[in-house]
Formats: sequence, C-alpha cells, structure tokens
Amino acid sequence: MNEGKARQVVLAARPQGKPKLTDFRLEETEVPTPSSGQVLLLVRYLSLDPYMRLMMDDRESYTKPVLLDGVMPGEAVATVIVSKHSGYVEGDIVLARTGWRTHALSDGAGLRKLDSGKAPVTTALGVLGMPGFTAYSGLRLIGKPQPGETVVVAAASGPVGSLVGQLAKMAGSRAVGIAGGPEKCAFVKNELRFDAAIDHRSADFPARLAAACPNGIDVYFENVGGDIWQAVLPLLNPFARVPVCGLIAHYNGAGPGNGADRLPETMRHILTKRLTLRGFINYDFAEHHAEFLREVGAGIAEGCIRYREDIVDGLEKAPEAFIGMLEGRNFGKLIVRVNA
Amino acid sequence: MNEGKARQVVLAARPQGKPKLTDFRLEETEVPTPSSGQVLLLVRYLSLDPYMRLMMDDRESYTKPVLLDGVMPGEAVATVIVSKHSGYVEGDIVLARTGWRTHALSDGAGLRKLDSGKAPVTTALGVLGMPGFTAYSGLRLIGKPQPGETVVVAAASGPVGSLVGQLAKMAGSRAVGIAGGPEKCAFVKNELRFDAAIDHRSADFPARLAAACPNGIDVYFENVGGDIWQAVLPLLNPFARVPVCGLIAHYNGAGPGNGADRLPETMRHILTKRLTLRGFINYDFAEHHAEFLREVGAGIAEGCIRYREDIVDGLEKAPEAFIGMLEGRNFGKLIVRVNA
Repeated sequence: MNEGKARQVVLAARPQGKPKLTDFRLEETEVPTPSSGQVLLLVRYLSLDPYMRLMMDDRESYTKPVLLDGVMPGEAVATVIVSKHSGYVEGDIVLARTGWRTHALSDGAGLRKLDSGKAPVTTALGVLGMPGFTAYSGLRLIGKPQPGETVVVAAASGPVGSLVGQLAKMAGSRAVGIAGGPEKCAFVKNELRFDAAIDHRSADFPARLAAACPNGIDVYFENVGGDIWQAVLPLLNPFARVPVCGLIAHYNGAGPGNGADRLPETMRHILTKRLTLRGFINYDFAEHHAEFLREVGAGIAEGCIRYREDIVDGLEKAPEAFIGMLEGRNFGKLIVRVNA
Repeated sequence: MNEGKARQVVLAARPQGKPKLTDFRLEETEVPTPSSGQVLLLVRYLSLDPYMRLMMDDRESYTKPVLLDGVMPGEAVATVIVSKHSGYVEGDIVLARTGWRTHALSDGAGLRKLDSGKAPVTTALGVLGMPGFTAYSGLRLIGKPQPGETVVVAAASGPVGSLVGQLAKMAGSRAVGIAGGPEKCAFVKNELRFDAAIDHRSADFPARLAAACPNGIDVYFENVGGDIWQAVLPLLNPFARVPVCGLIAHYNGAGPGNGADRLPETMRHILTKRLTLRGFINYDFAEHHAEFLREVGAGIAEGCIRYREDIVDGLEKAPEAFIGMLEGRNFGKLIVRVNA
C-alpha cells in the first residue's frame, strides 16, 4: 500500500493551549532508501502518548522540543522490509522510535526485536511497553505499596493506571481508580478488579473519593494533576508517597484558574504530613526493565493482568486521536494502525 | 527571683495573618508543688522556633493546635529546683518541653539531662538541639549531598541553615546561603565559610542566586518557601533533592498573591527534572540522634562547626521576639533567657 510514497505527520504550528488539527500537517515524501548498515522499516502500529504534548511546546521538558516542521516523535511497532544490516532480516518485527510516519530508516540503534508468538505485538506499546514500565517502576520503586495500604491512580482505564491498580492489588493493597464516565469506571471495577472506581466527572467527586478511601491514601500515583490532585491532597496519610509520572491536566496550559495560588497548600501538606513527591521517567529505572518484562509478561500470559487497547486506523487520523486523548476520549491504550 | 509566683505566656487569640502582641497574654500563677515522682523545674532558657506559628492556627499540623488560653508550647533548658523523683537531684540541668513559662512540673518523661561541661547548655536548643538535628537529618538522610554538588539553604544565618551549609561543605559540596541583609550575608560567608551568600532583599536576587550557582542546584534545603522557592525552582538540576522542613514565608498566610497559581509550574519541574520533594520532622529520624550529637558535638569542640545565638532577656519579651523572628529580625538561634 502507498507504493512508492511515504507519509509523515509534522508539527505545523506550536499549540496555544489545546492542540488543533491545523497544528499538524500530513506530508507525502519519497520512501527512503537504506544505505549499508541500515534497515528500512514499515510502521505498523504507532503509539500516541501524553508526553508528546510536552514536546510540542517551545521549552525544554525531558528533551528538546520538536522543531517546527519536524516529524512528530513516537514509538512504533514496525516490520523490516529491506535490510542492509547484518543483525536484521526482512520480516523482523521491531520496536522503534520512528515518529509519526509510515516508513523510517534505522541503523539498528535503539531497536528491539519483538516475538509475536509471546504476546500480541501491540502490547509492546502499552502494557508491556513504556506505559507499563512507567506503572511498574513508579509503583514498585517509588510508591512501594504495602499490604493493607490504599493506592489511588487516575486515568485508571488507561495503559499506566490500569497496571498501577493491578500491581497494587498483587502487593496486597487496596486499589482505587479514578476514571471519566460510568463506562470506564465499570471496566476498572469489573474487568480490572480494582476495589473501587470513582468518576471524576461526578459533581461530588471529592466526597466520593474520600468515601472510597476510608483509611486515607498511602500512595497516589500522579499522572494527571489539576483538580484531581486537589481532591487527593487532603486524603493523603502521613508518609504517603507520590510518584509523579505525568500531569496531563496541565499539558494544555493551566488555564485562568480561580485566582488562588494552590502552591502553599500543597507545600504545607508536604511539610506537615512528611509526604514524598518524586518525579520520574521510566528509563531512569532501566536496570529493572528485564524483571518488568518477565513479571508482567507472565501475568498477562496467565490472564491475571488485563489491559485494553483503543486502535485507530490510518496515520492521517493520528492528530485527531491525539487531541482526543488529551481530553480523555480514548478508552485504553491509544494506538494508530498505520499499516495492517 | 519572682519568689512565690510563676509566670506563663498563653495564646490569647488566634492570629489573623501575622501574630500581634495582643494574641499573647502574660499571666501570673502560683508556683506548682511537685507530687511524689515529680520534679519542679525552673526554666532558664526558652527556645523560640518557627514551628510554633503553625500550632497557633486552628487546624492540625504536626500535632493538635494550641488551645485558646493554653500555654504556648516550647522546649527549654531548665534546672531541677525540687526533686521528688529518684532519677533527679536538685541542680540537675535538663532539656524539657516546658512551654513558655518560668516554672513547670515534670514526671521525667521526655527529660534529657545536659552536661554543662561538654558544651554551653544553650546549644541544646540550637546547634546541638532540635534545629541542629533538623539540619543534620534532612541534609544527610534526604539531601545526600555529593562532592562537587551545590547545596542551597535559606535563613542561612539561623540555627538550621547555618549547620546545613557547614555540613554540606564537610561533604565536599558547594554551599550557597541565602540571608536577609548585608550583615547576615557577611556572617554566612566569612564566619560560617559558605562559598557564597546572597541577600534575598536585593532587587536582582534571582539573578544573583543564579550567578552563585553556575552548575545549578542539586540540593535545596527548604525552610522558607514563597519567593525564594520561585527563584530556586528554575535552577534545580535533574534529580535534585528538596528536603522540606519548614515554610516560614507561608506561616502567616500566603497573602493575596499576584493572582497566579504557582502549583502547575512546581509540578512541571518535579516531573520533567525528576525532583524529589520530601517533608520531614527531625524526630522521624530518632535512630540517628546519637550519631548527630557525637559528630556535631565533636565539630563544635574542634571549632570547625560554628553557630550564633540571639538571646533576649525576660519571658515577657517572648511574644515580641517571636513576632520578630517570623520577619527575620533575629540574628542566630533565638533564645529567651527566662531566669539567669
């Protein structure tokens, strides 16, 4: 398909607040030709993740911003269709940082071969990929949930939150998920088997959250920020741990707010409750990656770890799907099927 | 002196913002009579510390608030003047939580005998007391400064900050102190031998702080909050550690602010720089107290750890001195000499 032509999505304009479709541009290019030592990759599944929003702004976050007219960054499952690299043959399936495009060259740096017999290849973008490892490393190495403690996570039907809660249950903790809308909450409670699921769109959300956490909160896995943080803060127990892996509510700008500076209240809780807040990125914990793949891979094989994917067809749909994800419209790990 | 009568300072009204003299009341009472198993203490030196401000508000902080008309809490150096307790004799000098008063009874719980031959007894309220142990435990056990790293602390001429910087130097780090006014800055630089001292009252304070930290900040020992935190935040390096032991700038209320919510910016730095913020109280680390006394006691005896005390005469001066401390008017550890 698309013989002879490749396509890519570039950053056309830096978003002012929420990204718009016109901040992206779909371009047609020539399919590149691999040199000696390179492979040509056909992208099959592209991962869309909240961190990409941070990279669209003109300020440093984890890394340099995406350049204007530069290809949007991202990780994908791809097939080697031409190999001039001794380590790869045609048909190899790999995990690669291709960006939002149909074809990409690689010299093999950063590629990881995938075994489609072990688990569906799309899991390498979700529960067995970066989001899963984010959940695993943040919960295990920062959150450290103990038996009988209460762990709360937002975006609980998403790829990070869903694993956080399931790992918390495996550690003997009470898992409380926050999600948007009754359908997602039912999934979190019934399919993922959290102890409770609270709809953050409900009018009395703070009171419901408090009722679901009768013994307070010992670990809050922070991936959202904003109003959910304000509801969590008074419920945190002394010595609670807060791994901070994302702040999706802030990525489109903080908005006008209500005129109040909420920093002093947060700092006061940190002080008097002796909280630990710690930001992290999954790759800070690379030395634990093999044990993550082993443990979570086994959990999936045995059916005791569940996950959900939300697959959108066509690279041209990536901008719309990405914008929707920032508003919580996806249901499960958002993936673009670029080539079947 | 004051034969037959005791005096105490009680909380007359809960402060609205900054405490006023009328929020306190000096009362005369009878000197209490010890029962069997008790000692009568004559308070000699009373410690005034910022945490007391938190306890004046009608909400829980570390502990329950002070009751209205209740004696203001605090630690003191006292002499046993009557003993009906087998463990104490008249003349024993002890560290005790007497509160703001001239006389107090004790059954011995929580008393610690002091050896005036080892160090001046007032040091048990400062460099060898709670403030010193706060500096020691927060820096060593949370901040963990490494050789070549940069450690920043505010209120650097005070009892906590002065030890933080000196311990940072002993760990091979660069120590940068923040203090109010040229006299305190000169003391921090010349007497305490920090690498740099920056006056937070200078108009270009953020730029001066940045210039004093050419390699960024690896440990910020937070005891102030407010505008100083805003100046520190952009200078923090990836993986910086922020022990939070106090927020004196917030204790009198946050003020109207400038209408901006500063929480998203702080959370964004925590996330993208993988910061660790951790609140603590010195007694969380009680198992390290003996090594603190040994190490810092030796440093004082050898003259390589220096400290400064600001001694005010008379219990009746305690409210005014306390109010002044919250505005940075003291210079060194603030102590009230209650009885010579």
